[in-house]
Amino acid sequence: MAAAIDLVADLGEGYGSYTMADDEGLLEILTSANIACGFHAGDPRIMDRTVRMCAERGVGIGAHPSFPDLNGFGRRAMDLTAEEVRTDILFQLGALAAFATAHGTKVSHLCPHGRLGNLVITRADYAAAMTDAVAQFDPSIVVVTQAGEVVTAAAERGLTIAMVAAIDRNYEDDGTLTPRKEADAVIHDPDVIVARTLRMVTEGTVVARSGKVLPIEIDSVLLHGDGPDSLALARRIRDELVAAGVTLAPLAEIVKGR
Amino acid sequence: MAAAIDLVADLGEGYGSYTMADDEGLLEILTSANIACGFHAGDPRIMDRTVRMCAERGVGIGAHPSFPDLNGFGRRAMDLTAEEVRTDILFQLGALAAFATAHGTKVSHLCPHGRLGNLVITRADYAAAMTDAVAQFDPSIVVVTQAGEVVTAAAERGLTIAMVAAIDRNYEDDGTLTPRKEADAVIHDPDVIVARTLRMVTEGTVVARSGKVLPIEIDSVLLHGDGPDSLALARRIRDELVAAGVTLAPLAEIVKGR
Amino acid sequence: MAAAIDLVADLGEGYGSYTMADDEGLLEILTSANIACGFHAGDPRIMDRTVRMCAERGVGIGAHPSFPDLNGFGRRAMDLTAEEVRTDILFQLGALAAFATAHGTKVSHLCPHGRLGNLVITRADYAAAMTDAVAQFDPSIVVVTQAGEVVTAAAERGLTIAMVAAIDRNYEDDGTLTPRKEADAVIHDPDVIVARTLRMVTEGTVVARSGKVLPIEIDSVLLHGDGPDSLALARRIRDELVAAGVTLAPLAEIVKGR
Amino acid sequence: MAAAIDLVADLGEGYGSYTMADDEGLLEILTSANIACGFHAGDPRIMDRTVRMCAERGVGIGAHPSFPDLNGFGRRAMDLTAEEVRTDILFQLGALAAFATAHGTKVSHLCPHGRLGNLVITRADYAAAMTDAVAQFDPSIVVVTQAGEVVTAAAERGLTIAMVAAIDRNYEDDGTLTPRKEADAVIHDPDVIVARTLRMVTEGTVVARSGKVLPIEIDSVLLHGDGPDSLALARRIRDELVAAGVTLAPLAEIVKGR
Repeated sequence: MAAAIDLVADLGEGYGSYTMADDEGLLEILTSANIACGFHAGDPRIMDRTVRMCAERGVGIGAHPSFPDLNGFGRRAMDLTAEEVRTDILFQLGALAAFATAHGTKVSHLCPHGRLGNLVITRADYAAAMTDAVAQFDPSIVVVTQAGEVVTAAAERGLTIAMVAAIDRNYEDDGTLTPRKEADAVIHDPDVIVARTLRMVTEGTVVARSGKVLPIEIDSVLLHGDGPDSLALARRIRDELVAAGVTLAPLAEIVKGR
Repeated sequence: MAAAIDLVADLGEGYGSYTMADDEGLLEILTSANIACGFHAGDPRIMDRTVRMCAERGVGIGAHPSFPDLNGFGRRAMDLTAEEVRTDILFQLGALAAFATAHGTKVSHLCPHGRLGNLVITRADYAAAMTDAVAQFDPSIVVVTQAGEVVTAAAERGLTIAMVAAIDRNYEDDGTLTPRKEADAVIHDPDVIVARTLRMVTEGTVVARSGKVLPIEIDSVLLHGDGPDSLALARRIRDELVAAGVTLAPLAEIVKGR
Repeated sequence: MAAAIDLVADLGEGYGSYTMADDEGLLEILTSANIACGFHAGDPRIMDRTVRMCAERGVGIGAHPSFPDLNGFGRRAMDLTAEEVRTDILFQLGALAAFATAHGTKVSHLCPHGRLGNLVITRADYAAAMTDAVAQFDPSIVVVTQAGEVVTAAAERGLTIAMVAAIDRNYEDDGTLTPRKEADAVIHDPDVIVARTLRMVTEGTVVARSGKVLPIEIDSVLLHGDGPDSLALARRIRDELVAAGVTLAPLAEIVKGR
Repeated sequence: MAAAIDLVADLGEGYGSYTMADDEGLLEILTSANIACGFHAGDPRIMDRTVRMCAERGVGIGAHPSFPDLNGFGRRAMDLTAEEVRTDILFQLGALAAFATAHGTKVSHLCPHGRLGNLVITRADYAAAMTDAVAQFDPSIVVVTQAGEVVTAAAERGLTIAMVAAIDRNYEDDGTLTPRKEADAVIHDPDVIVARTLRMVTEGTVVARSGKVLPIEIDSVLLHGDGPDSLALARRIRDELVAAGVTLAPLAEIVKGR
């Protein structure tokens, strides 16, 4: 059983006058935050405020870099070279780190956003580019992923990896996520999501779509805050994990000693 | 007489496929560079390459932050709040610093670009915002200016100041620059520019438009590289300063011990 | 008494994944819409959908051009030249008109957004630039304003003007709006706003802050949709105007024959 | 033999303070121009000036829409939906048309830029999206392409097509261009380029890499202006075509009656 788990969500995803999620509400629940760095969302004011709120509450600060695509919210693939990916990530990581420094803290992890986050799992060149950026900027930054090429690339560079689990997605027998085109790719029933989360965290297993029980590595649970229901579900997951005796802690503490 | 002087120019002011100046040519002449940070010019590739070239040659790395206005090249005033100025500068400073870190060095100075650079001289709130950003990010970063509110603001925060002189501009008796609307605001004759530069550096004086001799503080000479003539002039200034026995050194060395 | 009045609101002010107001709700109430053109808000998808919805409901289509400032939502002054204002407006007007053409209709009016909208009232050069753009693109487009330089400039170019009234703002004795720095600049009581609107439309007068009764020209009433309360107020204004025997009609019909 | 041919080049590809090619030089040679619409290059000032210069010289005005990627100059694929492609093109087409209207003329053709231009040849959904945009905006606009899906899509919508030939590229026996990864994909010898151009225009044939003579449809010759050599070559091609008795005419005249 996991001695401790991190609760994370994407924060600071507004832009200018626009708001995306209930960041204040989420901050009462989380132990870590993936903070947008201005490429798919976020701007200097929002980054400053989000980092400050995290620092005040002891919530771990993570960079959430993206393809440069505000209009597409980072969800559209762009055919960037690996060198473009590396330099785009360095830029975003540095920009976020400036606000962490200004608030007396530091960036503790990095978790790529949207389509970039998908592609570092399958493209070795992007995984290398992203982990190069982390290694060059600060090798103590934890790389958060869901397996694939990025695990190999991070290991080769001596970086610490943390595994984030998809609690509202079905799994195939080989441990990959059921593709979104399948009807039952996404789980909507809150009771099922809560039960799966507890099993993942306390037993380290997940039941695949076929019924097969799979082992799963999990350091962090990804929550959402883009609606009243998702916030209520996030709060329930936190409460039930605590009730089950699970310790909640920021990612940096979860991976300490690895 | 100045024991030593810094030669600086604005570098990395291309964008994507666009080029602005002959950066490679300038790098053979300079001891410091003001590097664009993506708001008026520059992008992650250009920032990475420019910082690397500076690091390889021992050229001092300076942040050159701007109003967020790529289309106007940072030359148009924008009615930003002081808080917007502070956070925009933190963002740009951090982004540039990431490339410095990746290349094993650091940002040694900050010199605001274009209209923002004009306004921190006259607007106390912008001067405070800019120097707050520097103090919060790294108080060892030298603030480069031409007098005005920013001198007071930097001093209040314990920051080191360096004075950059306009070698191709006329001065009024009170030490301010002759306004650009005056016919003789800008000096075009290379011989006059070279002679004035030598006098500024070796004697610490400048002859005002009225003929009056004024004392002038000068730590750094601003050169240009946007044309074959300006590059030749930059090279000549360097050569004549060296011939006159002046030591050339990056800004960080010039201000050491202040 | 006004034979007919137009009800207008700013629509299509989302961007990418971001939403600003309840456009569908507003479209049940309005007779005209000011549609964002991509500079302070709006993008090609949102412009296409908003124009289509207006065309389907017979709601008049207006261009709502802005300074190029998505991050500041067009609320920050930018020191653009008049030529920059003219060409920026032509660009936005043409982009919106393409969607109108695609949906078998046309742009019927133009109402500048935010700070640009304020400045064309006081700056003759901006008023000239904006009305030049309209005259060059399509002189049948109605210019919507609240008095000032733009009225003169539009008249000089033979353009039709329509007056939009601020129903939730106090007036001074000279007919100008009470500056926002005054405590009672903005009226918050819905009952007062409704009563003032009815008086403006049916009697053509408004009671100034001093108690003095002023004549007021009004062709269009500006409504808001950025909250449940504002939408309810917009609906109530529409209902009470209809109950008072006022005819509601798009701006193009209101100004017909001028 | 072709009775007449159009000479075209990409114009207006600067941005803000940045310049790309010698537009004034090219305008002395061309009969048509593909004008950037602000997504990969170009801005309202540049679009206005470029359209004006074309109108003054009787050079045909073409829209040159792109993926929204100023930093990548439109050369990077973006995984847009067809609906995003259609609306992005409508936006750009309308924006450019506003300047044409302001200068008393109209957009006569459309030629997609960069990677978008490559993809409409192979992706039926993008070809449909682009030709939908043209049909919805103005079906008299000529679609310029190099074969592929866009030909089918344009024909289905009743649009006029014009063929632009690559004069500095080798061809395979099936009429497709030799892929750029092949060593001899691009032809650099000016004499060869001129000879091939004359043969294409006067005989309607091209010699493939294998030596086989292929028939080729050609309405327009694409010239370049990004260097002194390319401008000299463009001038020489024009002169030799004229010397060979070929009539030069804008695209709209070339395709008249189709």
